[in-house]
Amino acid sequence: MKFVDLRDVDKFTADRPHRELLYDSPNLRMLTFNFEPGQELPVHSHPSDSEVTLLILEGEGEFLGTHEMPARAGQLQIMPVGEPHGLKARTRLRLLVIIAPTL
Amino acid sequence: MKFVDLRDVDKFTADRPHRELLYDSPNLRMLTFNFEPGQELPVHSHPSDSEVTLLILEGEGEFLGTHEMPARAGQLQIMPVGEPHGLKARTRLRLLVIIAPTL
Repeated sequence: MKFVDLRDVDKFTADRPHRELLYDSPNLRMLTFNFEPGQELPVHSHPSDSEVTLLILEGEGEFLGTHEMPARAGQLQIMPVGEPHGLKARTRLRLLVIIAPTL
Repeated sequence: MKFVDLRDVDKFTADRPHRELLYDSPNLRMLTFNFEPGQELPVHSHPSDSEVTLLILEGEGEFLGTHEMPARAGQLQIMPVGEPHGLKARTRLRLLVIIAPTL
């Protein structure tokens, strides 16, 4: 069993979103990105049949890519990982990413 | 793409935890349970090689089963779905469950 307290995943870095891998198995990968205001996870996609979930844990910003829309804490997008996706932070923002199965 | 605002998943019921299915594909199932204080998801397991994640969105309670421990908002357990797991709420509690792949 893997236990995580997301309150402990609190690092931010000045030059790019801070990435932490929480869990990785053939079925499932979970990672977080912590954004300073203005930082961005550029639009990208992956050649796979996996699905990716973007769950905003804290803050406000914008979902980028195919499904561009405002983003705020408590919102999530679930989509095929082949669809272009990304995120831009307006405030400090913490993002949980869930990929299933692993790429 | 499936979009969910977890703030809209705000129903509670008196007789048992309120369950809502958010997403279901062969790779991934996501659902929520909203607990009134004292309500419980009884300890159970599933005969499968899937993994289950229990993420506390709000409130306080206790993880039950193989990995019994206090539970509060922002904490998550990731485990093989074959391991006995459950949850009991002490306050109003909202739980996000992620199963990958689908049972």
